Amino acid sequence: MSFKEEYEKKVELIEEILKKYLPVQEGYQKIITEAMAYSLMAGGKRLRPMLMKESFDLFGGEGDLIDPFMAAIEMIHTYSLVHDDLPAMDNDDYRRGRKTTHVVYGEDMGILAGDALLNYAFETACVAFDLEPEKSTRIGRAMKILAEKAGIHGMIGGQVVDVKESGHRISEDVLDFIYRLKTGALIESSVMIGAVLAGASEEEISVMESIAGKVGMAFQIQDDILDITSTTEMLGKPVHSDEKNEKTTYVTLKGIEESRKDVERLTAEAVGELDGLGRENEFLKDLIKWLVYREK
Amino acid sequence: MSFKEEYEKKVELIEEILKKYLPVQEGYQKIITEAMAYSLMAGGKRLRPMLMKESFDLFGGEGDLIDPFMAAIEMIHTYSLVHDDLPAMDNDDYRRGRKTTHVVYGEDMGILAGDALLNYAFETACVAFDLEPEKSTRIGRAMKILAEKAGIHGMIGGQVVDVKESGHRISEDVLDFIYRLKTGALIESSVMIGAVLAGASEEEISVMESIAGKVGMAFQIQDDILDITSTTEMLGKPVHSDEKNEKTTYVTLKGIEESRKDVERLTAEAVGELDGLGRENEFLKDLIKWLVYREK
Repeated sequence: MSFKEEYEKKVELIEEILKKYLPVQEGYQKIITEAMAYSLMAGGKRLRPMLMKESFDLFGGEGDLIDPFMAAIEMIHTYSLVHDDLPAMDNDDYRRGRKTTHVVYGEDMGILAGDALLNYAFETACVAFDLEPEKSTRIGRAMKILAEKAGIHGMIGGQVVDVKESGHRISEDVLDFIYRLKTGALIESSVMIGAVLAGASEEEISVMESIAGKVGMAFQIQDDILDITSTTEMLGKPVHSDEKNEKTTYVTLKGIEESRKDVERLTAEAVGELDGLGRENEFLKDLIKWLVYREK
Repeated sequence: MSFKEEYEKKVELIEEILKKYLPVQEGYQKIITEAMAYSLMAGGKRLRPMLMKESFDLFGGEGDLIDPFMAAIEMIHTYSLVHDDLPAMDNDDYRRGRKTTHVVYGEDMGILAGDALLNYAFETACVAFDLEPEKSTRIGRAMKILAEKAGIHGMIGGQVVDVKESGHRISEDVLDFIYRLKTGALIESSVMIGAVLAGASEEEISVMESIAGKVGMAFQIQDDILDITSTTEMLGKPVHSDEKNEKTTYVTLKGIEESRKDVERLTAEAVGELDGLGRENEFLKDLIKWLVYREK
């Protein structure tokens, strides 16, 4: 099977898990479950649950203990997009080629759908306690990583500085902070949770965190490059949005060529560290490399 | 000590716990920690953490295992207020006599501060796993209750229907649904978590849930009554806001007199069920009764 075929098969499995863990659409509050499904099932690369599952497999994890956390991380990623798109934030009407959640359901429901997805992420992760109660300590640790990496010392922290500095010229230091937190933290959390739930050693968990940090940075720089070099049709979202929002990006600070080199260097380092673990995972390596060459 | 003195002493202890669990105000993202503290430390009755602690004590809970959950439930309550006050929601500029979070920090930071408080609630609750790792199963269950009662089948579900039906004439059925979920669910979660962490029996947990459901309903009806009968100075927030927002309330459906009677009946029932548990807790009984007579 080619990488592309394997990747698409894995995406299908993830979509099934997401559908399984989405709330039933019923009751007086049905509209919110529709808005949650609308935003969560809008496609996307499913990179975070995929990395989580690959990390779980890498360390010999078995069974479905990882499933609720895979759904949870994608719900957290999705809620952050729903709130990012709001009029008071980036004010985007389209994402992944479809109208954004608040455009379809109204601004009030956009706010509540984001809240609902964030809350439901933790509700979903808690299912793991029922699946394998004897692993409660391990699940508790995974829960803590999930919360920490999504919060003010993780993703939200990055968003805050991103929003605060929008329209200002910022230093490389601040940009690095934003990227590490806004994009890197959830990717770190994905592979760390996979490793923790599979019973990896402290050292292994720490190596996975380092790999993910580099992958996250490479991924975000590639995003900046695509915002300049791609088209709206290809990307499924408006290009040149950084320019429109007067954002300092990796590309505006370092230029396209150096940005491309850094993506390649970070990716090579991540793959090297992965090799150093001495465990077989061709697909995970290919997935990381693919990030450099992706076109959307 | 009078009830009032005892209550105020308990509020002080809760404020100390909240301060202890608030994030340090530092780093590039400092503004979000300031906004979190601004909204969380704005006063308020601290009813939810107080009920949680009383329930924990009622079932012989010892030590500080309950503390992170007390902070967590108040963070969840607070985030819901911060998002409720946003321009796209209730559009309120004042709460508890102070400017609302988005008025002080901007609408974007208002959204992010709410997100941050919700996420930090779970991050904070996870501290319990470190405090008493041997109780991980119990803590996992408390975490699940926290998430479920705050989510689409709890508080958020109630908010969704409340927002959706605003300006419409609604049935008693729908109003009951909104009150049980929007207000009742977090109060249920408070006493249930206290009971679970203290090691109460399934039956005891279930009785506490029933008591809290009645207390929550009485509390919300009293809120409707005060919106009509109180003043902005007394309440620390605008009165007649329900009228302004064309909201159907318990008072518009049943009238003030029947509303008052129902508050008293529900309170008497709750106190009766509490007595039925055969455990001493004079303060908890007084607290429940006080809800009927409170003026703000």
